[in-house]
Amino acid sequence: MNHPVPPPAVRRTFPTALLDALKAAFGERVSTAAAVREHHGRDESPFDPQLPDAVVFVTSTEDVQTVVRLCAEHNVPVIPYGNGSSLEGHLLAVQGGVSIDMSGLNQVLSIDAEDLTVTVQPGISRKQLNEALKDTGLFFPIDPGADASIGGMSATRASGTNAVRYGTMRENVLGLSVVLADGRVIKTGTRARKSSAGYDLTRLFVGSEGTLGVIVEITVRLYPQPEAVSAAACAFPSMGDAVRATIETIQMGVPVARVEFLDSLAVRAINRHSNLTFRESPMLFFEFHGTESSVKEQAETVQEIVAQNKGADFEWATRPEDRSRLWNARHNAYFAMLQLKPGSRAVTTDVCVPISRLAECVIETEQDLNASTLPCPIVGHVGDGNFHVAMLLDPTKPEEFEEAERINHRIVQRALRMGGTCTGEHGVGLHKMGFMIEEHGEDAISVMRSIKHALDPKNLMNPGKIFSYDA
Amino acid sequence: MNHPVPPPAVRRTFPTALLDALKAAFGERVSTAAAVREHHGRDESPFDPQLPDAVVFVTSTEDVQTVVRLCAEHNVPVIPYGNGSSLEGHLLAVQGGVSIDMSGLNQVLSIDAEDLTVTVQPGISRKQLNEALKDTGLFFPIDPGADASIGGMSATRASGTNAVRYGTMRENVLGLSVVLADGRVIKTGTRARKSSAGYDLTRLFVGSEGTLGVIVEITVRLYPQPEAVSAAACAFPSMGDAVRATIETIQMGVPVARVEFLDSLAVRAINRHSNLTFRESPMLFFEFHGTESSVKEQAETVQEIVAQNKGADFEWATRPEDRSRLWNARHNAYFAMLQLKPGSRAVTTDVCVPISRLAECVIETEQDLNASTLPCPIVGHVGDGNFHVAMLLDPTKPEEFEEAERINHRIVQRALRMGGTCTGEHGVGLHKMGFMIEEHGEDAISVMRSIKHALDPKNLMNPGKIFSYDA
Repeated sequence: MNHPVPPPAVRRTFPTALLDALKAAFGERVSTAAAVREHHGRDESPFDPQLPDAVVFVTSTEDVQTVVRLCAEHNVPVIPYGNGSSLEGHLLAVQGGVSIDMSGLNQVLSIDAEDLTVTVQPGISRKQLNEALKDTGLFFPIDPGADASIGGMSATRASGTNAVRYGTMRENVLGLSVVLADGRVIKTGTRARKSSAGYDLTRLFVGSEGTLGVIVEITVRLYPQPEAVSAAACAFPSMGDAVRATIETIQMGVPVARVEFLDSLAVRAINRHSNLTFRESPMLFFEFHGTESSVKEQAETVQEIVAQNKGADFEWATRPEDRSRLWNARHNAYFAMLQLKPGSRAVTTDVCVPISRLAECVIETEQDLNASTLPCPIVGHVGDGNFHVAMLLDPTKPEEFEEAERINHRIVQRALRMGGTCTGEHGVGLHKMGFMIEEHGEDAISVMRSIKHALDPKNLMNPGKIFSYDA
Repeated sequence: MNHPVPPPAVRRTFPTALLDALKAAFGERVSTAAAVREHHGRDESPFDPQLPDAVVFVTSTEDVQTVVRLCAEHNVPVIPYGNGSSLEGHLLAVQGGVSIDMSGLNQVLSIDAEDLTVTVQPGISRKQLNEALKDTGLFFPIDPGADASIGGMSATRASGTNAVRYGTMRENVLGLSVVLADGRVIKTGTRARKSSAGYDLTRLFVGSEGTLGVIVEITVRLYPQPEAVSAAACAFPSMGDAVRATIETIQMGVPVARVEFLDSLAVRAINRHSNLTFRESPMLFFEFHGTESSVKEQAETVQEIVAQNKGADFEWATRPEDRSRLWNARHNAYFAMLQLKPGSRAVTTDVCVPISRLAECVIETEQDLNASTLPCPIVGHVGDGNFHVAMLLDPTKPEEFEEAERINHRIVQRALRMGGTCTGEHGVGLHKMGFMIEEHGEDAISVMRSIKHALDPKNLMNPGKIFSYDA
């Protein structure tokens, strides 16, 4: 069995001359304090922190260029840091280096309401962005569980509950500004809705996890707030029934805005955490966007599909406050699940399969989980074929880590056999590196590697992530 | 003034040993006949043909690998050839070499109706694909004017009239198989709807115009045929009114499936070519997809918007045969326009701008065209901000070429000033190379160039296109 966690890397030397140069350039905005390094050397993954040697708090593109240039001169890695919500070890300074904290680079640069676009700096979070948009009649739909930064979401090709209708960061980033490994800045894409002008650098940097450059500006698509919205929760006797209802909804072409799955353990977690009283059985949460009549029509179609798949207890949330309650509970599911086992951390799977295989994949997964000693709730963006198992483990017990990795391994290999991917939305980071060759093949990885070599010949941009630099 | 057409390239030597090796491998499927080379050395662009040294008719991925390997050994270029419908000189063998004719590699490999995907070989055309899908209840929406091959559409990141609703090849290609410059084959992407597993090689090859590898398999998304469809044509007193009606439709979030603009000269062309009787004034053609009630609702909303923008003569095409007539006329517009000036060829512009600038861009363009001696009809996928001017010229008159290029130059520079792109859907080929630095900047082009160098170190994959190989 391949172990999906790569071996520890060798830390690079961090020269005093670099620290001096950073201090000369940034003064108080450079920190080597243990607490600051500790905060920037971890994320929401279960891995032990790997501390950067220093953290720089940037406030401009030029600041980022300065850090990158100084680090290049001294052969020291740089790791962009957004909101710290990565789940796969993206932010860990496995080779040491400088963490670039983007929280001060968080402005909305331009809201172009007529074009349905906005240009932002990378440190702004998705909630901050939507707050800034609230008087425009527009919204930005991509919503990973955490209040992640737009820069981090671009870097990991994130998605969330709305992707089934609005797409992922892949479809919604129109253009970027990126600081390259040698400190130059490029702009990719335009604000036009489409273009055939050369290689798609935008989509090359989206999902590159900081390994090809540092994203410093992002233009994303916005959408008119729907005239009408309605949401519903609905219980099923089995996971298979819930998943089959989802599959039929997608295949019918119903333009559902959200369709989220929770297993009974996940329902228990959100009931406790958010003071809700759902029946502890497999559930789907739906949301419909459109005109009044189209929302009504979508809801009727889905109710028929649900009824044919033994769904019951349809609960409607038509008032905004009821919908907020429902979706906040869903968004807080990760933290709610951690509380099922006090003191636990989670190893999270993130497979995505062709929707024709989803029922089979989820049912076989359930059998794996039933045989485990760990509590393993399941939630999923099932309209996309994507689901997460959170395997709750005691971080002081190595055997629980091993058990979680064993299950993760089985789930990923099953998804790959079914034509799916090892990560639907969380990214590779450290945790999925071991599956990359199995998913893509040696030759495709060698193409990715030759792009990395071409754009980052010193291997200084978030090194040690996605795939090994050397063949 | 930069001239947008690059200087002639130097042809490479075509060794007899290579021809012998190709004949040994392919027998009758290699041709050096003048008529065959002539056919494969041209496209729908106004450029003079540039003949390949030989043409190989492939029928398998292994065939493509063999051609690529033999050519690599002898340092000879390869140029994939689909249906010959490129508009920008993509297919011209400016450095000589071997044209790989894909027409025998035209099978549907797998229709996965439950997943709404299909996997095809590159030589199949969009109409052939939809013919193969006709009993599935699904369709493939991307529809450039010509009956292009799916391989060519992937290579140029094509779109068409439906992109405003269904996206372009960028959004609709899920995965590829590609023969690399050294003859290895890679698979990119999976059939899962989303993935965050590493660099987005799929979208790197989509739009790379044969310069990074030869596409040999394509998996694309399909859509359920809408329950209801209705189409309408509508006349406006001015181009500005028609464009403003479009902009309001998009900004309202109406999920219109198609919204196509034709100026009065384009209307005259299609009236003559397709025996229609539209008023010769600026027009919009609309199509609505959805349920019966949603189509009705969309049409009502758009009718209100149109009325507020002085639109009149709303003509509905609700019967399938009426819609076919309308859209066939639109799809044949390019050939219809050529017939406005017998014996002419067309230089076609293809700019795309942020929709907020579209009215201004089209109105200023109209002023340019009014001052020209060439007939210059305009058609546009205006819901995307994309429009085409076909400048009809006598290919025997160099001064008409110059006049067309002068206008093209002004239109592209205007679009770039407005934050747009020099090509919305036709690709760069030879014709837009001169605008690439202006659009992207030297540094972004140097990134594209370093990717090209990394993946095609001998510059054998459709060389001389998109940007210059040497800085």
